[in-house]
Amino acid sequence: MIDIAVIGAGRIGQIHAANLHQHSAANLRCIIDVSDAAATQLADRCATDIGSVDDMLADSSIQAVVIASSTDTHAELVSACAQAGKAIFCEKPLDLNVDTAKQCLTVVEDMNVLMCLGFNRRHDPSFERVKTEIESGTVGDVEVVSITSRDPSPPPADYVTRSGGLFRDMMIHDFDMGRWLLGEEPLEIFATGSVLVDEAIGKAGDIDTAVATMKTASGRLCLITNSRRCSYGYDQRIEVFGSRGMARAANQRETLVETAGQSGYSREPALPFFLERYADAYRIQLDKFLRAVGGEKISLPSGHDGLRALEIADAANRSHAEGIPVRLQLPFQAASGHGSD
Amino acid sequence: MIDIAVIGAGRIGQIHAANLHQHSAANLRCIIDVSDAAATQLADRCATDIGSVDDMLADSSIQAVVIASSTDTHAELVSACAQAGKAIFCEKPLDLNVDTAKQCLTVVEDMNVLMCLGFNRRHDPSFERVKTEIESGTVGDVEVVSITSRDPSPPPADYVTRSGGLFRDMMIHDFDMGRWLLGEEPLEIFATGSVLVDEAIGKAGDIDTAVATMKTASGRLCLITNSRRCSYGYDQRIEVFGSRGMARAANQRETLVETAGQSGYSREPALPFFLERYADAYRIQLDKFLRAVGGEKISLPSGHDGLRALEIADAANRSHAEGIPVRLQLPFQAASGHGSD
Amino acid sequence: MIDIAVIGAGRIGQIHAANLHQHSAANLRCIIDVSDAAATQLADRCATDIGSVDDMLADSSIQAVVIASSTDTHAELVSACAQAGKAIFCEKPLDLNVDTAKQCLTVVEDMNVLMCLGFNRRHDPSFERVKTEIESGTVGDVEVVSITSRDPSPPPADYVTRSGGLFRDMMIHDFDMGRWLLGEEPLEIFATGSVLVDEAIGKAGDIDTAVATMKTASGRLCLITNSRRCSYGYDQRIEVFGSRGMARAANQRETLVETAGQSGYSREPALPFFLERYADAYRIQLDKFLRAVGGEKISLPSGHDGLRALEIADAANRSHAEGIPVRLQLPFQAASGHGSD
Amino acid sequence: MIDIAVIGAGRIGQIHAANLHQHSAANLRCIIDVSDAAATQLADRCATDIGSVDDMLADSSIQAVVIASSTDTHAELVSACAQAGKAIFCEKPLDLNVDTAKQCLTVVEDMNVLMCLGFNRRHDPSFERVKTEIESGTVGDVEVVSITSRDPSPPPADYVTRSGGLFRDMMIHDFDMGRWLLGEEPLEIFATGSVLVDEAIGKAGDIDTAVATMKTASGRLCLITNSRRCSYGYDQRIEVFGSRGMARAANQRETLVETAGQSGYSREPALPFFLERYADAYRIQLDKFLRAVGGEKISLPSGHDGLRALEIADAANRSHAEGIPVRLQLPFQAASGHGSD
Repeated sequence: MIDIAVIGAGRIGQIHAANLHQHSAANLRCIIDVSDAAATQLADRCATDIGSVDDMLADSSIQAVVIASSTDTHAELVSACAQAGKAIFCEKPLDLNVDTAKQCLTVVEDMNVLMCLGFNRRHDPSFERVKTEIESGTVGDVEVVSITSRDPSPPPADYVTRSGGLFRDMMIHDFDMGRWLLGEEPLEIFATGSVLVDEAIGKAGDIDTAVATMKTASGRLCLITNSRRCSYGYDQRIEVFGSRGMARAANQRETLVETAGQSGYSREPALPFFLERYADAYRIQLDKFLRAVGGEKISLPSGHDGLRALEIADAANRSHAEGIPVRLQLPFQAASGHGSD
Repeated sequence: MIDIAVIGAGRIGQIHAANLHQHSAANLRCIIDVSDAAATQLADRCATDIGSVDDMLADSSIQAVVIASSTDTHAELVSACAQAGKAIFCEKPLDLNVDTAKQCLTVVEDMNVLMCLGFNRRHDPSFERVKTEIESGTVGDVEVVSITSRDPSPPPADYVTRSGGLFRDMMIHDFDMGRWLLGEEPLEIFATGSVLVDEAIGKAGDIDTAVATMKTASGRLCLITNSRRCSYGYDQRIEVFGSRGMARAANQRETLVETAGQSGYSREPALPFFLERYADAYRIQLDKFLRAVGGEKISLPSGHDGLRALEIADAANRSHAEGIPVRLQLPFQAASGHGSD
Repeated sequence: MIDIAVIGAGRIGQIHAANLHQHSAANLRCIIDVSDAAATQLADRCATDIGSVDDMLADSSIQAVVIASSTDTHAELVSACAQAGKAIFCEKPLDLNVDTAKQCLTVVEDMNVLMCLGFNRRHDPSFERVKTEIESGTVGDVEVVSITSRDPSPPPADYVTRSGGLFRDMMIHDFDMGRWLLGEEPLEIFATGSVLVDEAIGKAGDIDTAVATMKTASGRLCLITNSRRCSYGYDQRIEVFGSRGMARAANQRETLVETAGQSGYSREPALPFFLERYADAYRIQLDKFLRAVGGEKISLPSGHDGLRALEIADAANRSHAEGIPVRLQLPFQAASGHGSD
Repeated sequence: MIDIAVIGAGRIGQIHAANLHQHSAANLRCIIDVSDAAATQLADRCATDIGSVDDMLADSSIQAVVIASSTDTHAELVSACAQAGKAIFCEKPLDLNVDTAKQCLTVVEDMNVLMCLGFNRRHDPSFERVKTEIESGTVGDVEVVSITSRDPSPPPADYVTRSGGLFRDMMIHDFDMGRWLLGEEPLEIFATGSVLVDEAIGKAGDIDTAVATMKTASGRLCLITNSRRCSYGYDQRIEVFGSRGMARAANQRETLVETAGQSGYSREPALPFFLERYADAYRIQLDKFLRAVGGEKISLPSGHDGLRALEIADAANRSHAEGIPVRLQLPFQAASGHGSD
């Protein structure tokens, strides 16, 4: 049994706590949140207690921590947990600032603790299957990765303001997915976008529709298209094209029922949003994290993967702002970046 | 070039005439119809002349005849053409009476002329592919053949009266398809049906919805389901299940476009009816017939295939009328029935 | 919280116990099995105790019982539990003998206890969706129900001997599904089958491939096809055709990944067997049962549904044995059959 | 009947000649080719004569000309035919040089003759359906157009040298398709590519894998991905995403047969190449051209559409060469560009 605490009782924290509550190898020790009410409510649902960061850090019987609090607290909490010698699962992004992210990763490395970043999509069974098909040779040499990612409806404008913008909040998942599937570091990005969905997003200084192309040293290419609104559900598709073939993951629906009538054949929309679409992925990633904490050798998205995605997002922002493609430096301490596959 | 005449300027005759008009190896000599007006109109469209049965029979330069006149004229015309030594393509059914059909087939055999029955579906590229998949071993030993066949809308009641009934008019195609795909003679049939679509059909003494199961000597099974009305187009599907796998042919649409919106994903209905769905099949069957007339060794549905389908339809009628399964005799001169594959 | 016991620690008992263990409204009180070792192992996994039938019957704090022991014990246990006033969830079939089944149902009615039969497929989200599409009018008046059900590989011959035969062991699910989707009692059945898969099954006096057609009073039709072996996974499809359209449920796969290469496009096989295919259905049916025990008004497959399916299976057996269609009596106490939808 | 000549007896010329030969409204007067042998062979097959450019220009009974000769002859022939007052169907591209293209279009405008450019894909029934879905409002406001276009296998290196490069030879079709579906002029393009398929193409100074993103004045986006090699056939897909939904055209196969076995479900590859995939489109575009020559008001891709695609291709070339996005000028005489939809 692994003793573990959850920081953050919001939407994502609730998912993680529920998954830990049901996991046979996890002993969910406490829920920590700035709001006592929120912490208590979640703790009750998961038959555990509420706690505080200081107590948790001081309690050496707590081996692992899930950080699902607000983004601006991630880096500090990661550093503190690392210094307390705890295994860390941290939601993305590490921080909106690359330098802050680097500093906390240095602490993680110095303390030599296990750290996993919450790029949940890598654990989605369909996307993992695409990765497996690449590794088994079905696709041959990867040449072009295409990622379509569209949210069902635009977030409120005040969320947009806090989010760091579409590239750092939304497309960051696709940057990580692109790196993972390309099997090679992107060294150039061109990103551009528009306000086509919601003028309030434009007023908040952000875009709601965007495309990006990335290129690696050997010339592999990645295309990403994002929208903050999609009428037919949460659109999450990837396609990997290569010298021997192609592998792609289609959108998922609640059922595979099809009806037909005078106007033709109909199928239901895609699953509504990430809670439904990635329910399995959330469960699987925590299970893998727990197994890694337990000593199993398991490849997990690392802090450096989180940092790299952030660097790409920053480059995308600059590309969009200046209207030029942006060169990417080789990853910070690339040698450690091997967690990515 | 093969000199050929078409008897019958109705719906099917028009298809055959147009295909012959465009075929580089056919010399369409004349159109023959009881209605001069109909014959003239079709002859004009196909840049040929009108003719008469007697002249055609007497003209030894006409090598082949397409018989697409009304069903009650088939047997007599087949006999006459056979006696005149002409190659015969005859629309199904040979006749509504098994004995009459047998008599005209005896003439065909005696005269040793080439005869092809218009089971057009055997020439549909998708169904032919299913047959090929069986022959190549993909399916293994055939065990169960399932056929779904639904017309878009019920025929007028007076057509029903003349048609010989659902089993002889509509399901007869599926009996032939079943035989062809089973690769073995069905020796028992159980058929039952209902009037669910159109009461006028019931008043005319027929049914509009029916199912049948057939069984061969070795125990292979065939299921057929028919309806005289289908809201989503002309429903024509087959599935063959066997020891190693399955092969199936899906319905066809005009395009492969899919749209998506708030209520889900949509595709257009299946093709509307047989003229659209089997356009290729009509063209291909005549092409094969012409090639066979030209001396090529080509397997075509024979007169005996037509007779056998009729015998099965009669057995289905009896099964439905008496509420019992009906044993089928081994085919009349089975040795000649090899055209079926 | 509902206090509940599980009888039977075999394959199905394990599923139910695990689902109860994770259910927030269930208090899994004990596991009962003729084998202490099996009971102990499952009890340990579900953090509960082992128990005995007598103690359980005597303990009035246990409100509900899941009966998942061997078929020959069902009827007696149902009667005993009913007499002890407990709510009953019983795996199908109630019994292999219709009279025995009727007797135990009489006890259930006399004691007026809640009883749910384990026709898990009714709770499958895809099949429930098809039912919903019927109820919402998409299909119009139901005319033809087609059910394809194929197991991945044949059971051992000794299982076949005990099973009651294909119609009572396997197609019984499809008889229930057919009744449920037809929305009307079948009053006639014709069933026939063959030994095409495994000669050992034939030697054990059973068949491994079968088809059946059923007909209701108003003329609605149902086709069922079964095989004990299917190379591409567990083949579980239904299609309902009606006056306004069609609804169908396709096979499910682990992922929706498709690959393409020189030989074409490929998708993985269907899910391997019922544990995977109906995992959700098993969970949902117990959840519904618990909610019904808790007082919610929920429609569940009743004991009479179980009895009716058995009667149809017996008729199918007779039809197959005698080679004739068999008339079905109106259901035993049809008035109570409201559970069926 | 429209009297028409075909210049060019190569691969495309043969398609056009065969379609004209079978068209009831066309009188195919002659085939013209620099090789007498090629012209004679094609003329024989189409039951017509060979001719010369000078005779054809001088013969006022020839109303229309199909120009399917080598690219470097297009502009001169267009000018000559325009001056002779003939309706012109010209294969793409008009010329590899924008200025030359402009000059010949000026002649076309001065002479006020009908001119249609051979962007055959606009006439593909599936792509036309996507366009119709946009026009009927299914998609809402168009926001993102995604085009995937992959050839089955790389052309010989000497073809590459003559072709003008991937952007002007291959992606030019997608530039036109993008403009057509965006419903708005792209004003910026970023294009990048790699040599991943065939080193010989790299040595010839070209690329074989490329992506491009385009943006219109209102912020609509277009993504294009091209490869010179695709293992699973000719990959031709488009997807249009908008405020209300999405419309997409899938790849086409010879049949819709699916097989299943132990390793899963299989479908055949996409159609092999453009002759098969666009057979209908070639036929339909000539039919539309003939109807336009006959006086019908029909929207056809114009010379200006051809010029615009060429300008975009040149911008793509510059973008790729210099590594920057390139601004596009508003179209040359945009007022005449009405042909584009």
